Amino acid sequence: MTGREVHLVSYPDGGVRPSDFRVVEVDVRRPNDGEVLVRNTWTSVDAGLRLRLRESGPEGYFAAFPLNAPMAGIMTVGEVVESRAEGFAPGDTVWHAAGWRDFSVVEAGREELAGIGTLTKLDTSLAPPQAYLGVLGGNGLTAYAGLFYASGMRDGDVVWVSAAAGAVGSLAAQFAKLRGHRVIGSAGSAAKVAWLLDELGLDAAFDYKSGPLDRLLREAAPDGIDVYFDNVGGDHLEAAIAALRRHGRVAVCGTISEYDAATPPPGPSNLFLLVAKDLTIRGFRGSGYVHLFPEFTREVGAWLADGRIVHRETVIDGLENAPDALARLMRGDTVGKTLVRILN
Amino acid sequence: MTGREVHLVSYPDGGVRPSDFRVVEVDVRRPNDGEVLVRNTWTSVDAGLRLRLRESGPEGYFAAFPLNAPMAGIMTVGEVVESRAEGFAPGDTVWHAAGWRDFSVVEAGREELAGIGTLTKLDTSLAPPQAYLGVLGGNGLTAYAGLFYASGMRDGDVVWVSAAAGAVGSLAAQFAKLRGHRVIGSAGSAAKVAWLLDELGLDAAFDYKSGPLDRLLREAAPDGIDVYFDNVGGDHLEAAIAALRRHGRVAVCGTISEYDAATPPPGPSNLFLLVAKDLTIRGFRGSGYVHLFPEFTREVGAWLADGRIVHRETVIDGLENAPDALARLMRGDTVGKTLVRILN
Repeated sequence: MTGREVHLVSYPDGGVRPSDFRVVEVDVRRPNDGEVLVRNTWTSVDAGLRLRLRESGPEGYFAAFPLNAPMAGIMTVGEVVESRAEGFAPGDTVWHAAGWRDFSVVEAGREELAGIGTLTKLDTSLAPPQAYLGVLGGNGLTAYAGLFYASGMRDGDVVWVSAAAGAVGSLAAQFAKLRGHRVIGSAGSAAKVAWLLDELGLDAAFDYKSGPLDRLLREAAPDGIDVYFDNVGGDHLEAAIAALRRHGRVAVCGTISEYDAATPPPGPSNLFLLVAKDLTIRGFRGSGYVHLFPEFTREVGAWLADGRIVHRETVIDGLENAPDALARLMRGDTVGKTLVRILN
Repeated sequence: MTGREVHLVSYPDGGVRPSDFRVVEVDVRRPNDGEVLVRNTWTSVDAGLRLRLRESGPEGYFAAFPLNAPMAGIMTVGEVVESRAEGFAPGDTVWHAAGWRDFSVVEAGREELAGIGTLTKLDTSLAPPQAYLGVLGGNGLTAYAGLFYASGMRDGDVVWVSAAAGAVGSLAAQFAKLRGHRVIGSAGSAAKVAWLLDELGLDAAFDYKSGPLDRLLREAAPDGIDVYFDNVGGDHLEAAIAALRRHGRVAVCGTISEYDAATPPPGPSNLFLLVAKDLTIRGFRGSGYVHLFPEFTREVGAWLADGRIVHRETVIDGLENAPDALARLMRGDTVGKTLVRILN
């Protein structure tokens, strides 16, 4: 049996180009003892992948992708075709981290992506399989942990979420609303802003391209903010530091504004305000909070069952289009969770 | 009776110039009910004052100094000359925040500087009066609170303290040593570095002017650091973020490298490492931790009584030289606590 894999063939210089990748047809081997063979159905496209399209990625982050090899460490769901591992049977829906290919041979019980990508059977009665790449998976956990743990959220906090129309941002914004907070969202187009206001029900939202960020944020949050959920970095972080009230907190989830740059741009010039206003900036990753999965699944699963969460998907069909899906995500052309449906 | 006051007459453009100040002879009024008249003996010189020599200082920070007026809000010690407040008698040694003048009329019980500058009788059996402007005062509390509270210090953490020959830094470095940590200090001259190693007994120290900061820090802490006590900001903060290990923490006490700039320089360009390594940056001020004074005085007082703390002073004689003392501190020409002895 053969299947396709997406390989990185050159490191993007600036924006991601589909020509930096190629699709390779390879033989699919049979599973050994303790392994399962999975026919993949959906694979994830996340901004953080851009950081791994480098000769060496940021220290401490997930490993950079080697050239001319399968891209290990991308969350994927699929169906077990053949199992030689206890607890898995043909037909099971699972997730694992060996994505961007048609078939994956995955070792059961092996820790990947610090726990999130370990081969796991999924409960598809709660939501369709691809939801485990978004709202019920790493993105959801990231939003939940960043908001409620890394930021040290307190009752009554006013929250700003940037990239609020993205996979993580749209969930963070909704989770904050569901816990009773005033939530401001920002995004990069008028259509996204309309979606934030009309569908997600945020209290205020703005298109960061429509004017000076400081002014837009001040109009949306005239009395300032207490928590900033940062997906963007750069000028967004600087604006947040200016707008934060005493004892305010930033949970840094990502800094997408910097990912395409060969040399990262300088950071905020107003860091003294951390001292003046007793502010805290904390970086975090969902993978540091896998112990929260039971609590997260309970609370978010209930919201989901009650129809209280909008989880929009931008679906790109065809494994061969995964690189283009990432390029589109990086350009801001997708809304909600960006997914590739694998038609194999 | 008359006395001198230092007034700010123009906002420094770049470095502090004594010509931005003038000494004014004024009438000293008698205290009203609830007030005491203090003959000041020592007044404090701190880098943070530079931030207040502006038309408007950083939001949330101590108020900017108005032109042609006494400079309210500078920690000072002196002797009560006349008291109309309960609990204070002539001859008492006190601190208050109405400094840079020969005499101050101070209201008892009035909160100043968020609690630190409230008129307080000092126990001079523990240390000489001026120690309450340094090791036993705001500087000491700042070092203590920043290190043990804001940074969330844990057993075994390796700590880097910048401006470690300064008033706060030299105490933070010693407090960390006394609690059993490996401590790296940096300062701006070979003589200061020798003092850090020979007198304070730090584990490693370097002159940040002697080479690229990243390399100097790597040599001093080959396995990285867990906590950075930041007095400098700018390139120092960037180097710390690079050197911090997973779950590392920064307590930002000050960013002296930026204070003379009309426009603050950009911040670190490696803030994504906050995400990659789960790092936290927390700004703080001693004034946010006045509730720790009893604990702080007990622990640091005991270290002091046992002769385990070096608290070096750079003494400049004469109130009229206070502006020059600040200019010298900002240039890095002083070591330990910079003090003005008022000869009135």
